[in-house]
Amino acid sequence: MTFRNGLASLLRPEDSVLVLIDHQPYQLANLNSHEPQMVINNTAGLAKAARAFGVPTILTTVIAERGGLLFPQITDVFPGQEIIDRTLINTWEDPKVVDVVKATGRKQLIIAGLWTEVCVAMPAIQALGEGWDVTVVTDACGGVSVESHEVAIKRMIAAGANMMTWIAVAAEWQRDWARLDTAGKLTEVFAQHGGGSGIAYLWEQQLLNTPVPTAAG
Amino acid sequence: MTFRNGLASLLRPEDSVLVLIDHQPYQLANLNSHEPQMVINNTAGLAKAARAFGVPTILTTVIAERGGLLFPQITDVFPGQEIIDRTLINTWEDPKVVDVVKATGRKQLIIAGLWTEVCVAMPAIQALGEGWDVTVVTDACGGVSVESHEVAIKRMIAAGANMMTWIAVAAEWQRDWARLDTAGKLTEVFAQHGGGSGIAYLWEQQLLNTPVPTAAG
Amino acid sequence: MTFRNGLASLLRPEDSVLVLIDHQPYQLANLNSHEPQMVINNTAGLAKAARAFGVPTILTTVIAERGGLLFPQITDVFPGQEIIDRTLINTWEDPKVVDVVKATGRKQLIIAGLWTEVCVAMPAIQALGEGWDVTVVTDACGGVSVESHEVAIKRMIAAGANMMTWIAVAAEWQRDWARLDTAGKLTEVFAQHGGGSGIAYLWEQQLLNTPVPTAAG
Amino acid sequence: MTFRNGLASLLRPEDSVLVLIDHQPYQLANLNSHEPQMVINNTAGLAKAARAFGVPTILTTVIAERGGLLFPQITDVFPGQEIIDRTLINTWEDPKVVDVVKATGRKQLIIAGLWTEVCVAMPAIQALGEGWDVTVVTDACGGVSVESHEVAIKRMIAAGANMMTWIAVAAEWQRDWARLDTAGKLTEVFAQHGGGSGIAYLWEQQLLNTPVPTAAG
Amino acid sequence: MTFRNGLASLLRPEDSVLVLIDHQPYQLANLNSHEPQMVINNTAGLAKAARAFGVPTILTTVIAERGGLLFPQITDVFPGQEIIDRTLINTWEDPKVVDVVKATGRKQLIIAGLWTEVCVAMPAIQALGEGWDVTVVTDACGGVSVESHEVAIKRMIAAGANMMTWIAVAAEWQRDWARLDTAGKLTEVFAQHGGGSGIAYLWEQQLLNTPVPTAAG
Amino acid sequence: MTFRNGLASLLRPEDSVLVLIDHQPYQLANLNSHEPQMVINNTAGLAKAARAFGVPTILTTVIAERGGLLFPQITDVFPGQEIIDRTLINTWEDPKVVDVVKATGRKQLIIAGLWTEVCVAMPAIQALGEGWDVTVVTDACGGVSVESHEVAIKRMIAAGANMMTWIAVAAEWQRDWARLDTAGKLTEVFAQHGGGSGIAYLWEQQLLNTPVPTAAG
Amino acid sequence: MTFRNGLASLLRPEDSVLVLIDHQPYQLANLNSHEPQMVINNTAGLAKAARAFGVPTILTTVIAERGGLLFPQITDVFPGQEIIDRTLINTWEDPKVVDVVKATGRKQLIIAGLWTEVCVAMPAIQALGEGWDVTVVTDACGGVSVESHEVAIKRMIAAGANMMTWIAVAAEWQRDWARLDTAGKLTEVFAQHGGGSGIAYLWEQQLLNTPVPTAAG
Amino acid sequence: MTFRNGLASLLRPEDSVLVLIDHQPYQLANLNSHEPQMVINNTAGLAKAARAFGVPTILTTVIAERGGLLFPQITDVFPGQEIIDRTLINTWEDPKVVDVVKATGRKQLIIAGLWTEVCVAMPAIQALGEGWDVTVVTDACGGVSVESHEVAIKRMIAAGANMMTWIAVAAEWQRDWARLDTAGKLTEVFAQHGGGSGIAYLWEQQLLNTPVPTAAG
Repeated sequence: MTFRNGLASLLRPEDSVLVLIDHQPYQLANLNSHEPQMVINNTAGLAKAARAFGVPTILTTVIAERGGLLFPQITDVFPGQEIIDRTLINTWEDPKVVDVVKATGRKQLIIAGLWTEVCVAMPAIQALGEGWDVTVVTDACGGVSVESHEVAIKRMIAAGANMMTWIAVAAEWQRDWARLDTAGKLTEVFAQHGGGSGIAYLWEQQLLNTPVPTAAG
Repeated sequence: MTFRNGLASLLRPEDSVLVLIDHQPYQLANLNSHEPQMVINNTAGLAKAARAFGVPTILTTVIAERGGLLFPQITDVFPGQEIIDRTLINTWEDPKVVDVVKATGRKQLIIAGLWTEVCVAMPAIQALGEGWDVTVVTDACGGVSVESHEVAIKRMIAAGANMMTWIAVAAEWQRDWARLDTAGKLTEVFAQHGGGSGIAYLWEQQLLNTPVPTAAG
Repeated sequence: MTFRNGLASLLRPEDSVLVLIDHQPYQLANLNSHEPQMVINNTAGLAKAARAFGVPTILTTVIAERGGLLFPQITDVFPGQEIIDRTLINTWEDPKVVDVVKATGRKQLIIAGLWTEVCVAMPAIQALGEGWDVTVVTDACGGVSVESHEVAIKRMIAAGANMMTWIAVAAEWQRDWARLDTAGKLTEVFAQHGGGSGIAYLWEQQLLNTPVPTAAG
Repeated sequence: MTFRNGLASLLRPEDSVLVLIDHQPYQLANLNSHEPQMVINNTAGLAKAARAFGVPTILTTVIAERGGLLFPQITDVFPGQEIIDRTLINTWEDPKVVDVVKATGRKQLIIAGLWTEVCVAMPAIQALGEGWDVTVVTDACGGVSVESHEVAIKRMIAAGANMMTWIAVAAEWQRDWARLDTAGKLTEVFAQHGGGSGIAYLWEQQLLNTPVPTAAG
Repeated sequence: MTFRNGLASLLRPEDSVLVLIDHQPYQLANLNSHEPQMVINNTAGLAKAARAFGVPTILTTVIAERGGLLFPQITDVFPGQEIIDRTLINTWEDPKVVDVVKATGRKQLIIAGLWTEVCVAMPAIQALGEGWDVTVVTDACGGVSVESHEVAIKRMIAAGANMMTWIAVAAEWQRDWARLDTAGKLTEVFAQHGGGSGIAYLWEQQLLNTPVPTAAG
Repeated sequence: MTFRNGLASLLRPEDSVLVLIDHQPYQLANLNSHEPQMVINNTAGLAKAARAFGVPTILTTVIAERGGLLFPQITDVFPGQEIIDRTLINTWEDPKVVDVVKATGRKQLIIAGLWTEVCVAMPAIQALGEGWDVTVVTDACGGVSVESHEVAIKRMIAAGANMMTWIAVAAEWQRDWARLDTAGKLTEVFAQHGGGSGIAYLWEQQLLNTPVPTAAG
Repeated sequence: MTFRNGLASLLRPEDSVLVLIDHQPYQLANLNSHEPQMVINNTAGLAKAARAFGVPTILTTVIAERGGLLFPQITDVFPGQEIIDRTLINTWEDPKVVDVVKATGRKQLIIAGLWTEVCVAMPAIQALGEGWDVTVVTDACGGVSVESHEVAIKRMIAAGANMMTWIAVAAEWQRDWARLDTAGKLTEVFAQHGGGSGIAYLWEQQLLNTPVPTAAG
Repeated sequence: MTFRNGLASLLRPEDSVLVLIDHQPYQLANLNSHEPQMVINNTAGLAKAARAFGVPTILTTVIAERGGLLFPQITDVFPGQEIIDRTLINTWEDPKVVDVVKATGRKQLIIAGLWTEVCVAMPAIQALGEGWDVTVVTDACGGVSVESHEVAIKRMIAAGANMMTWIAVAAEWQRDWARLDTAGKLTEVFAQHGGGSGIAYLWEQQLLNTPVPTAAG
């Protein structure tokens, strides 16, 4: 058991690959750890950030013909992309998914899904055993209870997983506001999904573009 | 002090008028009673529901050139609509707003805004004294602390205001799922802003449109 | 607005009628105010208590062919009983339901359902205006958020509704443990649904039926 | 029991009188309903707002030679002002205080103190019975437990008291941002005690005073 | 429905009578609204305060031979006093209790018991209908869930009951620290049951009895 | 101290053995970390899942003739099975239990019991020292306070224990929905104990078995 | 960093030594992480358990002549015992304390005190570095905020400390209810300080000593 | 991964260096993990404590001309000090900051900033990899949600960071109240920012300087 630290341990877009797992109606129907609208919002924000930074994103479901299709807020980000459907609850035992991930050649594996304690925990734990650097984006996940979500996080930490939230992932990919090509795209994502930060940015731009009043307002 | 009950006390689209007050950056920057993204989401959902039911909606701000423009998630629902800017903190003391509300000829006055304890409480209390039937949509509001939000709700209840949340307002306007002209529009609003209800509806439609399996799946 | 008090205001089995509204999958899929398993448990406990005390119980759903059938934990308590399906969101505007309630000749109207802020609030408020003595069993209800549930309770209180929880209703029907005919049945309901009370009762009976130890244990 | 509403029911500086009761060390030592630093901050903010609007403020303690002196954050706002010391726990039974309040000729009586359930509740309830319009500033109060604070608020509401929080009081006194003589003073109070609002205001001023960038920043 | 206010509405020892209901093991075994040790502590503190002020206290249980004896922390305060055992869940329907209360000739009826929603709510509501001035000491009560406790408080408020907590009752009986005969006794009760207030008092006395240091400490 | 990860670290039915410890009335009577009904529900769900997957389950109590018999909701799952009674608080010091566990030949030791901080923590910590792979099912446990439960979980993590919740254990045993022999049994367990998931499954099946409507519903 | 597990890692009375640090008025006056009465209760319960098991207990304060004397609820357990007063905030840097601890020859060092993040954290971290086996009894501690208490626990875990609560410590010392000499004493401690467990025990004894009813009660 | 313990691991003023990062308006505008006023208060308290102990403090911002200037409550502590502005989100990648820190020659690196999960987490994790002893002062930080703040803390713990709160840092620097030169300064900081501790200290001094009453008060 070693500490996970150092500059190299921070996420980089060119080394990242994102896997979104089972954001489906059956799972959401018994999600009790988070406000469902926030999980949808955060996952869509994460997906758009991945797209903005060119991070390959794998979409997968479990028996979608019964448990329901992936949320449209996610699929809308990747029009036409194949969604890998499985019977295996543990995504990482399904070569259909793992082969696609391996094909990207990237080793910073980022996972989010429903439920935290099942569909996220199993692949995270297995992949860690195989040497992957695994990050779980907890606020794009959710479980059947607050306890199940939090206990799963403790379990994954004990397995060596790295825990983050979606805005932190996006900001770590950006790393420097001087990288203007992605800064604009990221700002757009925050404006749609970043709550107070999006509104604060719009205010900032409005006021900056207001001529200095000649007499104090 | 009388009980507010009876069928006539329920909200009807044809008698409703909505006033959205001061959903602006300055206010959101110190909102601590709710997740800001949820307040934006709920207010946008409420605005779209009002549009779907033909409920006239008044938009107003306080000194927008300094405190910031109304959230685009709200103005996007009403493209081109005038936003009434004020210096008066209490909207109801400004005839520019009240005259527009009165011109609608409607008496079920529905209010949401930031902050609950200031920009919502004052007009609600004044309008109640003038005989309006006032409903406050609490989850499209928010205050500087949980206590300030909750205490303001108690104060407005003591003033005779009716308390609701945005999905309840929309469902009360709908009243009967047999009203198909608005049912479809409302469903669309829920799909975008209604969290688990939107996703559950999509699942329902997917499964209903799946042929009955010949052997149990 | 008058205080609701006095011995006559307490619930009596012979004057009570229970209406269970829209305990259906679509509603449960976005219930975020309570642990869903507890709502199912509490509603089943309430239903069984009603049966034990001979309180007529009306079951109703809204478009069950799409939104899903009433929970089996409820229908199992009343095998073969008709479930009144509606398109009207507001149960009390549907004479199919109201006529059955009126036919019981009882005036203590007890309501529980999903969601508190829609399917419970509307009939409660309408019935209060028509002179019914309305009690809402809050822990057999639930809403899309904690705020929507709590705000709806405040609204119904302002409408004159009486607020209770399911164990309080059952105990008020019992009123005196000397009424042995129902005491046994109620104890059985608590054993299944009453959490710590059921287990405590079993312990009490075990120890009472243990011979006094000859030497201190 | 009547609703408290109408424009006249809003607070006006010229009709307001503030009584701060027993913000003393002994009381703070067992305050468990709020973060103590926030109660000190909110009471100081309220005191400074009162001074800014010319609202007479009465300071009183109970046996200060043993229970400790009024917080310096409050006395610093009113240098040299007499603090009325009492043995009576119920301030309103002590003519030394009531006479001073009456001498102001104002009838909008605003109270804050420690503890909510003792030193605030008693005078509020007594004064209400004598016809005063009583407002309690809940976040400048606090009790020995969350329950004691909240139950006391329910009790005072049942006695007819009006509930507010300190920023709401200050904003209601201001009423219109066009009243520039007090607007500046109030902004200063928010900058010191208003958390995010103070910082947001400073940001607004900084950006407004930044020349419009020639190329988008 | 009238406001309950005015000096006469405050509790006075000579007009008060306290009824402690069903603080028994069976009830405590499913108490989930409060920390059980705190309910025991608060009830014992309330009982000792009643004794200190000469307030007659009635003790009653429901089928104690099965549900268990009153907590010894309560009975120890009143050695040798008869405990009225009932089969009636609603204490106020049992003349054995009511006759004793009436015999005291006092009309400020103060109630605490387990559970809030059953054994407290029923007698409170009935007695209010009979014209009693009823106060419920909420933190010497408790229910099977937080919701059941809180909903019962709302119900009793709607019935006209007055809500307080035990330290507020004791302080209201004291009213003036100049009443030295009871002040000392009350201080002793706080030292044992009043958490931080007891310890703060001891500190105050220690420091007051410390000679002024010749050089600052 | 090593990370616990890799595919082999996931639970498998054929390597699992479950020990349920002291789910008894005395313990439940002072359980304050969870809703008691949920602990009963979760433990019964876990027991039925173990039975469905053929996982041997050991039942044990501490002095059941005084502290009360195991909950019937658990014993009903294993009719006729011996319950090992102990005087030792630490189950793992009692060879009567350990020998039975060892006889199963399995090394994935899964524990749940009351209280987390006593009857679960001690055997978990001892067994870990002896080389067992220990998993604690936290939501089938509970303690005398939230703090005692949570601190015990931290302690057991520091001892090397794996933390899970009951639905996660059951889903991990299932691993692949293509294993139809257990999938049906597990679905039945969820329908009874899995809250929203059971109801969502019933809805799914209802809708799948509804013919596709000829015109949109 | 190694896992702390195995039978030898459990607490034994003969190897334990308890140090109670700075349970003084100055610290309690700003304790905001716990209900103060519960901290007093839990520390007294821990102290009495230590006495019951013959565990040597060291009492220490920091500048008691100013910050106040140790709570009498603690000193009453050890009449006449010296209390070691310090100026050093970090107890473990004061040989007056450490020498007494070392003189006991015991290595299972158990600490509780106020505040968790200062007076407990420093000696725990230092002693761990010197090879002591350190257990912190978190519910006999407390800090200036919930965050400060919880962050300190995380820090001490990262330093290798063992976290427990007072009832867990007492039960671990007892280990087997067949040790009758201490079982009776421990039961007495629980009856006074163990909330629901004390009352449940008294009920158990009452019912066991009730003759079996000839007809079901 | 090793335990961080031992006397040498405690903070010493002469080895400490403090970096305050991005306490700016844009960040505060979407801070939802803490009360903003408390974060401002705690950071100012930490800054003043650093000044009192002579701990060098580096101030840094990210694009302050747009995101806003450092809070004046912080800059007021260090009049005239340069604030290092960056475009890099990760402070530790900017040599302008790191060189200044290195120039102090100190290795106990103490960090606080907004947001915890971005501007604090990245430099903490990088610096740990470079061998720094990193302490994060969590209550002078804050994030966009409670979850983002708490998950970031878990991540930094897994990276080897030490977690503290501001009062704990200050007390650890003081270490011994006999160090009178800093004790007075620290007491002054607590009086302004330490909530109940400041007031308790003033009370203590008042009472100590009160002559012993000739007759008990």
